[in-house]
This record gives sequence, C-alpha cells and structure tokens, in this order.
Amino acid sequence: MFPFNYYAPTKVIFGKGTEQEAGKQVRAFHGTKALLHYGSGSAVRSGLLGRIKESLEEEGIPYVELGGVVPNPRLSLVYKGIELAKEEGVDFLLAVGGGSVIDSAKAIGYGVANEGDVWDFYDRKRKAAGCLPVGAVLTIAAAGSEMSNSSVITKEEGGIKRGYRDDICRPKFAIMNPELTLTLPDYQTACGCTDILMHTMERYFTNGGNMALTDRIAEGLMRTVMENAKILLKDPQNYEARAEVMWAGSLSHNGLTGCGNGGDDFATHGLEHEMGGLYDVAHGAGLAAVWGSWARYVYQDCLPRFCQFAVKVMGVPAVGTEADVALKGIEAMEDFFRSIHMPTSFAQLGLSPTKEELEDMAHKCSVAAGGKKGSAKVLYEEDMLAIYKMAAQE
Amino acid sequence: MFPFNYYAPTKVIFGKGTEQEAGKQVRAFHGTKALLHYGSGSAVRSGLLGRIKESLEEEGIPYVELGGVVPNPRLSLVYKGIELAKEEGVDFLLAVGGGSVIDSAKAIGYGVANEGDVWDFYDRKRKAAGCLPVGAVLTIAAAGSEMSNSSVITKEEGGIKRGYRDDICRPKFAIMNPELTLTLPDYQTACGCTDILMHTMERYFTNGGNMALTDRIAEGLMRTVMENAKILLKDPQNYEARAEVMWAGSLSHNGLTGCGNGGDDFATHGLEHEMGGLYDVAHGAGLAAVWGSWARYVYQDCLPRFCQFAVKVMGVPAVGTEADVALKGIEAMEDFFRSIHMPTSFAQLGLSPTKEELEDMAHKCSVAAGGKKGSAKVLYEEDMLAIYKMAAQE
Repeated sequence: MFPFNYYAPTKVIFGKGTEQEAGKQVRAFHGTKALLHYGSGSAVRSGLLGRIKESLEEEGIPYVELGGVVPNPRLSLVYKGIELAKEEGVDFLLAVGGGSVIDSAKAIGYGVANEGDVWDFYDRKRKAAGCLPVGAVLTIAAAGSEMSNSSVITKEEGGIKRGYRDDICRPKFAIMNPELTLTLPDYQTACGCTDILMHTMERYFTNGGNMALTDRIAEGLMRTVMENAKILLKDPQNYEARAEVMWAGSLSHNGLTGCGNGGDDFATHGLEHEMGGLYDVAHGAGLAAVWGSWARYVYQDCLPRFCQFAVKVMGVPAVGTEADVALKGIEAMEDFFRSIHMPTSFAQLGLSPTKEELEDMAHKCSVAAGGKKGSAKVLYEEDMLAIYKMAAQE
Repeated sequence: MFPFNYYAPTKVIFGKGTEQEAGKQVRAFHGTKALLHYGSGSAVRSGLLGRIKESLEEEGIPYVELGGVVPNPRLSLVYKGIELAKEEGVDFLLAVGGGSVIDSAKAIGYGVANEGDVWDFYDRKRKAAGCLPVGAVLTIAAAGSEMSNSSVITKEEGGIKRGYRDDICRPKFAIMNPELTLTLPDYQTACGCTDILMHTMERYFTNGGNMALTDRIAEGLMRTVMENAKILLKDPQNYEARAEVMWAGSLSHNGLTGCGNGGDDFATHGLEHEMGGLYDVAHGAGLAAVWGSWARYVYQDCLPRFCQFAVKVMGVPAVGTEADVALKGIEAMEDFFRSIHMPTSFAQLGLSPTKEELEDMAHKCSVAAGGKKGSAKVLYEEDMLAIYKMAAQE
C-alpha cells in the first residue's frame, strides 16, 4: 500500500426531508449571512428553495440569492457571485443543486477569500490561501462535489474547462435527500451514474497499486452503482436505488476509493474536460464516449488491474490470456454504458469533430495537465490525440 | 436505507515514517502546548517517543508528558491528566499508542473542557459541551479510536467500564505508520483483528437494515481483515498485511460501515465491557469469547442478515434452510477466531465465573445500557444473563 492522506471532514446528513436542516447546519458551522446559490428554476418550482429559505429564516440567518448556474458552470457567474458576496458581507455559501452549483460555490469561496483573479487558481498560476465555507443541499447524484476537494469551472472565452483541487474547499456539510432526485430525467440519471463509476475507475486503474481493502470498497461501489442504475432505468421513482446511487456518488469522489493507490489516473476526466469546454456536452456522457478508447489504449500497461476489474467488477470468467480477460472487461463496461443509453463514441454523442478540433483538444488537454497525465499509463499530447481519434472513428 | 449522519473529520496521514509529521499536524490544528500521552515503556524503548518529541521541538511546540496508560484505561490516570493539563496550560492532547491511550486522551479532553467530574459523562449523568483537541499517533490497530467518537474508561472502584460517545472528541488527525505495529505480539495482533471485525459486525447485524453499498463495504472489510489476520499469524513482519489491518481498523469504527443501518447493535461490546471491568481481560479476546453465544442467542431474530453474512463473508454455500446457513456462518466465524488463537468461551479465556458473578455482570450490563441493548435483537437483563451462561457452559 502506498502512503496516503485521507481527509473528508464533510458532515453528511442523509435521508428524507433533511433539507429542513439547512439553516441549523449553516448556524452550526458559524454562518451568519448566506449566499444561496442555485441553478435553473427547477429548485424554485419544486418548492425546495422555499423550504430552505424557511429553514434559514427559522435560524435567523439572512441571505442573498444567486441562481442561474448551468452545467459546465461559467466563470462569469463566479465573478458575479464574488462581487455580490463581498458587497453583502456574506460569510457562508449555501449551494443548492448538483456538482455544477457546488463547484461554482467553491469558486466563489476562493474568490472572496483571496485577492486577485480567481481564475489564476484554475489556471495553475498560484494556490489559494483560503476559501469561504461552503455547505451543500444535493439535488443530483453525480459529481461528488459535496464531499470532494475539487471544483471545475469553464471560462467562456476559448471554451476552457479547468479543475482546481484543494482540501480547503471541502464542504462543511452535505445534506442529501434522495427524494430530491426522484424526478431526474433518465438521461441525467445515467450521466450521473457514469460520472460516479468514473470517479472510482480513475482511482482504480493505477500502476503498481497494491491495496486490498480499498479495492474491495471500490469494487463493491462500482457493482452497487451498476445494479442500481439498471433498477432506475425501469423504476426511476425507486427511493432505495436513488439512495444507494447518491451515497455512492459522495464516497466515490471523497478520496476513499483511492487510498493507497499511489496516485489517481484521471486521464479520462482530462480528456472529457476539453470535450465539455468545446462542445458543452453532458459530463457523464462525455466520459462514457471516450472511456472505452482510453481503456483500449492503456490496458496493456496496466494489465493486472484491468484483469482484476474484469473479474471482480464485471463478472468476466478468468479464462484465457490476461489480455483476453482485460478486453472482455472493457467490452462489458461499454455494454453497460450502452444499456443505460450512454454513448461510447463521439458519433453516438452526436459529434463529428474535425481533425483540427481533435488536435486542438489534445493540445489543450496536454497544456491543462502540465504536459502529461495518467497513472495506468502516462499520456502525452500524441497519446491524447490518438485516443480522441479512436473515439472519433468508432 | 434508513436516514443517517456521517461525520468523520479526522485527517489521516498514512505510511512509513509518518510519525515525523506529528509536530506539523499539532501546529496545523492550532496546538501551542501539548500533553504527550502514552502507555508503557515500549514507545520510549523503541525510540518512537523520541522521534515525536523531536518533531514537536522542530515546530517549537512545548510539551509535558504523561505515560502509564494501561489496557482498560483507568479513571485515576484521567484525573491526573486533567489536573496536569490544566496546571500546564495545555491546549492539545497528543496520544501515542493504541485505543486505550487515545480513549484516555479523549477523557482528559472532556475533563479539561468541562467543569465538574468527568465520570459524569461516562455515567450518562450529563453531556459534554466541549473537548480539548486530540491527535493520535497509532501503534496498535484495533480499537479504531483514532477516527471514532468513542472513549471507554474503567473506574477502578467497582470495576466499572463505561463508554461515552460524542463527535466533539473525534481526533483532529491520526498518524498511521503500519511499521510501528510490526513487532506486536501475535496475541495482541489477533485481539486487534477481532476488535476490528466486531466493530463492523456490531453495525452489520441489525434488524430491518436495507443497504447495499454499506453492506458491500462491510463485507469487503471483514474478508480483508480475516485474510490478513491469517497472513500475520505466519508472517508478523508483513508490512502490507499490517497496513490493510490498520486502515481497516479506522474505517471499521468511524461510522462508515453502519451508514443507513437504522442503528448499531453493540450488544457484544456491552457484554464484554463488564467482563473487561471485572476480570481485566484483553478486549478483543473477551469479544471473541462471548460473540458466538450472543450470535446463537439472537440469530433467529435477524435471520436474513445472518444468512447474508454466512454467504457473503464466510463463504458458506446457500444450501439448506436459512437457519442452517446462518448457523454455519456463526460456526465458520468461531472457527476463524480459534484459528487465530482467540477464545470462544469463558473457559478458553481462562475464566470460570460463579453464578453470582454472571448475575452481577448481567445486571451491570443492563444498567450501563439503560435497561436494554441491541438491534439484531433487543436484549434485557435476563437475555444478557442467558448469553453469559451460554458462554460459561461451552
């Protein structure tokens, strides 16, 4: 087992009706004035936002509002939030939504707590010294941002999507009521399950990792997500399945499934970020579209773990050469993606990128990663381009 | 899935040589003067304490020392620690040892941060309003106190062992270097593995629980601990096995393996506490000695989960009646305990308690639990006595 740090201090309040605790939790974490941050009107229409406002009012916590967060959350709104929070003397950011809203709140938190341009942190120019406390009421199980140290923001100019990671942005609390996800459209549910699976796969496919407990947790999590994704396809209103997926989403990205792995891979996420930045595709769908090509490109450099994945996660019989078993595992995962109507190529995603666009994405992906990315196999710009081309041809 | 709260804010620093981080971590969590708390001379003789003192000195953090913690840590030393910490103006408690030392540090933390007799909290008379921050350098994988909200103290007068749980005592950081456990005697290693297994079993055997991800994590954890306990029996110096057991010890008792279970059982722990208080037996050995009797007494009230345990953890074929399968699972776990030289009865523990002693323990156990205990089956004083008698007869 490689050395590791694990730090997941977020307090989780999980179950039906827990959004009514929001005010109490803001108070418990010393918030005295909140910025209520959210996305589209669905949180308003469903009455959720109203219930949260009531809970803040019951605790006597004043708040200002900033809605309008979109998937692949935009830097321009982050700037607006920073200005508003400073003007209003906000000391707590309450994000009501999915990963995009929470990521946007984290970015606002960095912007308020540090001088200068907040994009500097995402652009790897400098490190943040602090972050305003963030709390989350989760409405989409997917990104895991409610417990993670990660925030991903898109700069409109140039379509640049960049992530920044720091423990100081980990939410103080995460309120998770699976009921809030019962009405999610099938496509969004499938995208969420894909993202959750990917957060664990990005930590699972590493080179030289030797960890038993972490692997058993990761394998159990992936099997649970796949089982429940299939249940939700037929029965979207299944509370138990929604609850399993929601809890899996948090554990998949809070660090637990990578403890002792020697370093995460996250190349698939890197590849998808450029697709998301350029085409504004749904994150989960983008991941599914490129994962199989990534896996086929790298599996021979990470054969023991691709074999273990095939056998322990996908139920492939351990028969034939290691390469046979590994490839069958990759095929089985792609079959699963297709079974929940996720794309496994650019074409299925509705994209037919030009050669220049592929080269542009590979270049940006390499720059964003500081020249190379990956643990299962270290990828350089030419590798990234090769994978994009595979995904574009399939 | 039942509603749950999960809060495990402890920062984990895991790997070889990590004890050298102790000073830095005390500093990071705002400690300016530390009480260095430890047990017997082994930490001194091994040089561990010296390395930790150096790391404190490098950070310019003054400290006072209090050694002498024993297994089933004593209230009298806790009182001494409270007095010393107050006199010396200590604002951080650095525990170097296993569960007993960390539990003792937590009790000192309560005593310093609250007026009046610290025993009141353990005696369920009142709740603590605060706790001095605690950090841990772990030397024994067993109790899980390094991430837990629990502290168990023994009052010498009357041999009363009582636990108190509150999130405010959760350690700020836990430094875990598996190398420090390489020289543990076999008996202590086996006791530790038993305690770790029990912390998950106490959360697994519950009535009405319906949780998939939590179960997969719990099952993977139990299998990993059993596999590595067997490796350590033959090869105590195996770093990888020590690392798996150490990480399992923390995850087993930080709440993770019980999320959504509707409430833990912990009856076996309750039964053992009275044995530990009266006879000063090793905690893990006491648990093994009474678990099988508890399991046979309660399994029919918790049949689906005992069956699941038998099949998914112990590898029992799902053949025959549910009761057959459940009983085979219990037998398999007892076989495992015996394979690592743990007792499965009072006699094997070297005890032959009188009828009066059994009655005394059952009475104390019932009082400590406020009259009843358990989730798999709710136990009253007569049930506790029946289980003690089964363990005394076998």
